[in-house]
Amino acid sequence: MTTILDDHPELRERLHELYRHLHQNPELSMQEHETAALIEERMGALGYDVFRCGGTGVVATLVNGDGPVIGFRADTDALPLQEDTGLEYASTARGALPDGTEVPVMHACGHDTHITAAIGAATLLVQNRDSWAGTVVFLFQPGEETAAGAAAMLADGLWDKAPHPEVIYGQHVWPGVTGSIDVTPGPAMSYSDAWKVTVKGRGGHGSQPENTIDPVVLAAYMIVRIQSLISREVAPLKSAVITIATMHAGLKENIIPPTAEFTVNMRNLDADVREHLLAGLRRIITAEAMASNAPEPQIEELYTFPLLINDEEETARVIEVLRGALGDDKVSEKPAVMGSEDFGALPDALGVPGVYWFFGGMPQDVVDSDEPTPSNHSPFFGPVMEPTLSTGTAAAYAVLMSRLGKNASA
Amino acid sequence: MTTILDDHPELRERLHELYRHLHQNPELSMQEHETAALIEERMGALGYDVFRCGGTGVVATLVNGDGPVIGFRADTDALPLQEDTGLEYASTARGALPDGTEVPVMHACGHDTHITAAIGAATLLVQNRDSWAGTVVFLFQPGEETAAGAAAMLADGLWDKAPHPEVIYGQHVWPGVTGSIDVTPGPAMSYSDAWKVTVKGRGGHGSQPENTIDPVVLAAYMIVRIQSLISREVAPLKSAVITIATMHAGLKENIIPPTAEFTVNMRNLDADVREHLLAGLRRIITAEAMASNAPEPQIEELYTFPLLINDEEETARVIEVLRGALGDDKVSEKPAVMGSEDFGALPDALGVPGVYWFFGGMPQDVVDSDEPTPSNHSPFFGPVMEPTLSTGTAAAYAVLMSRLGKNASA
Amino acid sequence: MTTILDDHPELRERLHELYRHLHQNPELSMQEHETAALIEERMGALGYDVFRCGGTGVVATLVNGDGPVIGFRADTDALPLQEDTGLEYASTARGALPDGTEVPVMHACGHDTHITAAIGAATLLVQNRDSWAGTVVFLFQPGEETAAGAAAMLADGLWDKAPHPEVIYGQHVWPGVTGSIDVTPGPAMSYSDAWKVTVKGRGGHGSQPENTIDPVVLAAYMIVRIQSLISREVAPLKSAVITIATMHAGLKENIIPPTAEFTVNMRNLDADVREHLLAGLRRIITAEAMASNAPEPQIEELYTFPLLINDEEETARVIEVLRGALGDDKVSEKPAVMGSEDFGALPDALGVPGVYWFFGGMPQDVVDSDEPTPSNHSPFFGPVMEPTLSTGTAAAYAVLMSRLGKNASA
Amino acid sequence: MTTILDDHPELRERLHELYRHLHQNPELSMQEHETAALIEERMGALGYDVFRCGGTGVVATLVNGDGPVIGFRADTDALPLQEDTGLEYASTARGALPDGTEVPVMHACGHDTHITAAIGAATLLVQNRDSWAGTVVFLFQPGEETAAGAAAMLADGLWDKAPHPEVIYGQHVWPGVTGSIDVTPGPAMSYSDAWKVTVKGRGGHGSQPENTIDPVVLAAYMIVRIQSLISREVAPLKSAVITIATMHAGLKENIIPPTAEFTVNMRNLDADVREHLLAGLRRIITAEAMASNAPEPQIEELYTFPLLINDEEETARVIEVLRGALGDDKVSEKPAVMGSEDFGALPDALGVPGVYWFFGGMPQDVVDSDEPTPSNHSPFFGPVMEPTLSTGTAAAYAVLMSRLGKNASA
Repeated sequence: MTTILDDHPELRERLHELYRHLHQNPELSMQEHETAALIEERMGALGYDVFRCGGTGVVATLVNGDGPVIGFRADTDALPLQEDTGLEYASTARGALPDGTEVPVMHACGHDTHITAAIGAATLLVQNRDSWAGTVVFLFQPGEETAAGAAAMLADGLWDKAPHPEVIYGQHVWPGVTGSIDVTPGPAMSYSDAWKVTVKGRGGHGSQPENTIDPVVLAAYMIVRIQSLISREVAPLKSAVITIATMHAGLKENIIPPTAEFTVNMRNLDADVREHLLAGLRRIITAEAMASNAPEPQIEELYTFPLLINDEEETARVIEVLRGALGDDKVSEKPAVMGSEDFGALPDALGVPGVYWFFGGMPQDVVDSDEPTPSNHSPFFGPVMEPTLSTGTAAAYAVLMSRLGKNASA
Repeated sequence: MTTILDDHPELRERLHELYRHLHQNPELSMQEHETAALIEERMGALGYDVFRCGGTGVVATLVNGDGPVIGFRADTDALPLQEDTGLEYASTARGALPDGTEVPVMHACGHDTHITAAIGAATLLVQNRDSWAGTVVFLFQPGEETAAGAAAMLADGLWDKAPHPEVIYGQHVWPGVTGSIDVTPGPAMSYSDAWKVTVKGRGGHGSQPENTIDPVVLAAYMIVRIQSLISREVAPLKSAVITIATMHAGLKENIIPPTAEFTVNMRNLDADVREHLLAGLRRIITAEAMASNAPEPQIEELYTFPLLINDEEETARVIEVLRGALGDDKVSEKPAVMGSEDFGALPDALGVPGVYWFFGGMPQDVVDSDEPTPSNHSPFFGPVMEPTLSTGTAAAYAVLMSRLGKNASA
Repeated sequence: MTTILDDHPELRERLHELYRHLHQNPELSMQEHETAALIEERMGALGYDVFRCGGTGVVATLVNGDGPVIGFRADTDALPLQEDTGLEYASTARGALPDGTEVPVMHACGHDTHITAAIGAATLLVQNRDSWAGTVVFLFQPGEETAAGAAAMLADGLWDKAPHPEVIYGQHVWPGVTGSIDVTPGPAMSYSDAWKVTVKGRGGHGSQPENTIDPVVLAAYMIVRIQSLISREVAPLKSAVITIATMHAGLKENIIPPTAEFTVNMRNLDADVREHLLAGLRRIITAEAMASNAPEPQIEELYTFPLLINDEEETARVIEVLRGALGDDKVSEKPAVMGSEDFGALPDALGVPGVYWFFGGMPQDVVDSDEPTPSNHSPFFGPVMEPTLSTGTAAAYAVLMSRLGKNASA
Repeated sequence: MTTILDDHPELRERLHELYRHLHQNPELSMQEHETAALIEERMGALGYDVFRCGGTGVVATLVNGDGPVIGFRADTDALPLQEDTGLEYASTARGALPDGTEVPVMHACGHDTHITAAIGAATLLVQNRDSWAGTVVFLFQPGEETAAGAAAMLADGLWDKAPHPEVIYGQHVWPGVTGSIDVTPGPAMSYSDAWKVTVKGRGGHGSQPENTIDPVVLAAYMIVRIQSLISREVAPLKSAVITIATMHAGLKENIIPPTAEFTVNMRNLDADVREHLLAGLRRIITAEAMASNAPEPQIEELYTFPLLINDEEETARVIEVLRGALGDDKVSEKPAVMGSEDFGALPDALGVPGVYWFFGGMPQDVVDSDEPTPSNHSPFFGPVMEPTLSTGTAAAYAVLMSRLGKNASA
């Protein structure tokens, strides 16, 4: 495939450098200090007006004569994971969780490709300033992984300070074939709720369980019991997933601790299923505590991601544009996915449409192989640079130009 | 009750001060640096020859003319636990586990009473130097909680450097009534084995469990399955306990981690049961990994405590002596307990008898109340100072004098 | 709504009588002796050529001049369930399972409505003999519930003996609103596999579990473990269900039995998911037996239902016909369901298209209420007679006439 | 070893015949009709006064001049089990459980040896009528396995009709070495409680679990959860066992049934542990139903066996007598066992002492082998006839003669 970047080899080279740098310097959610500084510096150098918003968010605006105001959002944070891609530019960075625990950090969700493609498109817009008119607003959003970033930018007065776009776009890299684009009209990404559960028992010596209420065994029974919510209480034709990705209890092998903690992440595509499962989780957690004669566990709600809904009409138009720019065979419609996003909060706050698409990052032979393709959030998730970065850049540029260009049709 | 310390009110006062200091300055296993320095200082000041052994172990010897060589062991380490006794002198200390994790530290096993009582008896021996003859060897042993300390002292050449006792005594505070002593002839404390199990899965995004092997759910199934080892594979008339006191997995609620870790501590009183359960643990851990299609988990053996066996003949004699010193009604025989000790390694290395007893630390009304009495390793375990410390001191002194005293009978 | 039966009140009355009789005289799969005799008698009386096929199957053919050969299948068996509908004509019948166990029997899947509607349509065809030409073949199939009946008819030479239809239709009552029809183009009903699992342990006295291998606890662990296949190994966007509806073990509360038996029924819509889950079931069953140190369990494959696929083109035509006969608002397309059928085996054996639809049996207010609507196989499943039976009859007649009628369009 | 039967080879031969007959004709609890008739006939023929009591119980009394009244109890019922001993005289009998289920029947608890030995001792007493004086009362008790038989005899006025013994003896065969006797002074056999639990869910089609409350999965979670009562809530130094030996649910693999049933049998040696576990069972059963959103399960208490306590003084005397009769090395004291008995109800109702002992039934090499020895209630439990039957007979005779004999010491 060819993209507009084939005509800009020098820009492509600079984007590759930028990407390698970002990949080697990932920062955890809401701590994207150096990333934000770098974005400010690069966007400022291109001639954009930049300001900070929501701590480590960056808004970069270019007014280029009369015309529509169009938004583009790129998220910037990384994850607490030890990179295991074997890439020459793999991350060895470390960071600290909010509770102070030091952890490895990795761009395991590929937000570094989002920043790079956004800066790539921003550069092309500057280079082709004569062929369009209007205002473009780039929203570099922090803290997507924790559902905190869009909320922080809005709370910091984003739409009091920035021009109001009539539509906002966004994109995400994923383990599809590099060079391809996938778009879902309508409901596209799932509800996602996260809880932290503190299981309360009674501690004591490991040799005298009869004088304790063992919170580790209790938590294990809860985790095992929760499996039945999915297997028995969700209709097979509906979609839902409950993941318990963390559990922490105890410091010493012969001291039964007084408590155990685990997190629950639940996703689904249907408000009824969501309500049933939230109630079911509480029911099981409470009942299992009763079965152990333990105190009521404490449940802390960490976040709720809403359904991400792509405006159907604007999505149809975007698909046309992307097919024109990248080739018909490169752009597919696909069903909703169980991933979640806070992207929607940004257009929703203005009541304007949003459209969000996926661009592939994996070589064809990796996708075709019998081995499972490493997915986002895997320590092995490492998109190939090309044509991934060119595709992301070209897609962003094409969709923006379809609105801003002097012969734009929208 | 009255003890020899009623005649030494000033010594008692000094022991109380020492105890409060030790209680407020607990140190983790094999890191008892300040504790060891304090012991050296105090025992040296009393006239004992002191030397370090096994890192933070201290050996203190007093040669007082011709006579038998008798040993007395006190262990010195504390536990990673947040004290919750509400005592005015409660610990607020912190320390670091071998992996660097910072944790609160507490003398939740009461080894501070052991040090205090040993120094108390050592003081009385010096004060009554005329009434005995022989050599007394105090062994202040580090790292009892991890089964590392006795081994470390032996590995450091303990018996190459110190005189060889013909018998070694030791004692432990426990949640019996303060002022009372309990002794078990023969097998007295259990085998104890500890493992660290690393459950291996395959990490990935929390929304795509089908592309992962979830180690958290797998570990929960293992923990639940292990319950059946005790409930179905041990004869009801035999004694065994398996505690999984720690489990740690995952850093982020939507990233299924690649691994989970938990520890297993297993105790029993019977070599056959021990062999069956060790094999059963491996069997279940392996089979559950198979059930998840996961790699073979990694098992690291942390320690093995042997059965602690009190020499039957010497124990009978010790009971007599203690009844003489403290009153017949204060000293009871009791059955074996499921706690474990590395005390036995010290006399075993010389092939000489050892005797080990318990002294109570709780007020009568606490023991009698309907609430469970806080046990060793509980954040609420706080022995009352008196008559606990006087009893421990008097017991140690009486038993030592029964061997060393000029009219000793043994 | 009105149907053709509004013009035939006497026929409707006779169909109601027939339905009540069938409902009160249900027979288990492949034991439909009286049902078959009754069908033979009724269809013979109408002028159809009848013969037995596959034991309790009945084929009834009417040749009415030159024209197409068209098939219609109705299944005839009932289920081992105690009816609890409270209907005045509720079943009190009993039967015997293949292993000899005596059980209550109930038409809990509504096959009595299928027989009644088929005989109703067959009667209308006879009464309107002048308005059509060709051959109609009614296939009264036994043993649908066990996937044995279509296979038995085919094995007994069905297509050697009966005329070959160019298309075969069928229908099923379900808990939709009475009077309505639902149709699914393409894949419409799921794969369904059933296994009987014999868990092997070692029996003994209930007080000595250590001398046994407890197959009841082992089976419980298997059942609990199998939940994770659905919750962790199927993509949330795919559909699958595993039900363990029977378990039997032990005769006496203090004798641990040597074995336990349970059945597994698994459904899904995707060959890959099916393969993964069949392998996963074997993996878990084997691994849990290992975890108990038990012998390899025995797995008996009871049946496999294939995907039921409605011919897309013919289904579109059928929808048109049904809308014409019953009203546009009465006929809906709907997505695939997780129920299964051996209907497809009959057209598949000839390589001709099949179409299969659902007709509702529940009053509007029952469907609308907050209570779950009793579903097929529930002891509370009792379709209301009208307009359920009129709709089934009218639908069958309309679709047959759309092929056979003198002004038929197909 | 030699016993008194070495002098009575003809009696031994007749006892062997009787034993083979009883073994081949086992009858279930409270249905021992032919067994009772046979006992009446044999004891009557020996000259005993016989009467029926408690349905299938038989009381046989012989008054032989002035002297003490002494009782001996033998239980008579068999178990619902398919014998798998491979013995030439193995049982092929069948019977019916109270609910009508037909089952195989086997003397898997060896009560046939008890009847045989009692009749053997009764015969020796008649043959040696000159050497003793007094009254002997043989109590052939039905329904021991269900705790129903002693209660039935007492309810039928046993002690209104039979002479009152001043002591009652009993014995039980078990998998010790044939020829040996084991006796436990004081508490000897455990409390035993049995429950039938009916788990209530909501039935429905196996493809729609979301519309049901699955009682099979719920029962499995209960069974798995109950394991933690033993593993975590009983002190390792205490003895308790909970066995779930039966579970029954469902008739068809694709119909989720409305209920599931299982039985629980719980044994322990300590009133406190018993109270805690009974409450814990209710707690877990209730809480697991809550976790499934299911109705409260129904618990039916089937029986309670009390602790069996051997009178300590009389037991010491019996041990002396048995050592005299069989050899010192043949008679051992042993700790309590987890089996249970309603024997104690018979002396308890009169307030007189009872003593109950075990006699071995297995060859030395079977006991010594690495294979687990088949225990009571195993389909493989088949005592060797000799010296098992001679030992049982000689033990009963010796103990009775020690009280009744003209030079008896007691």
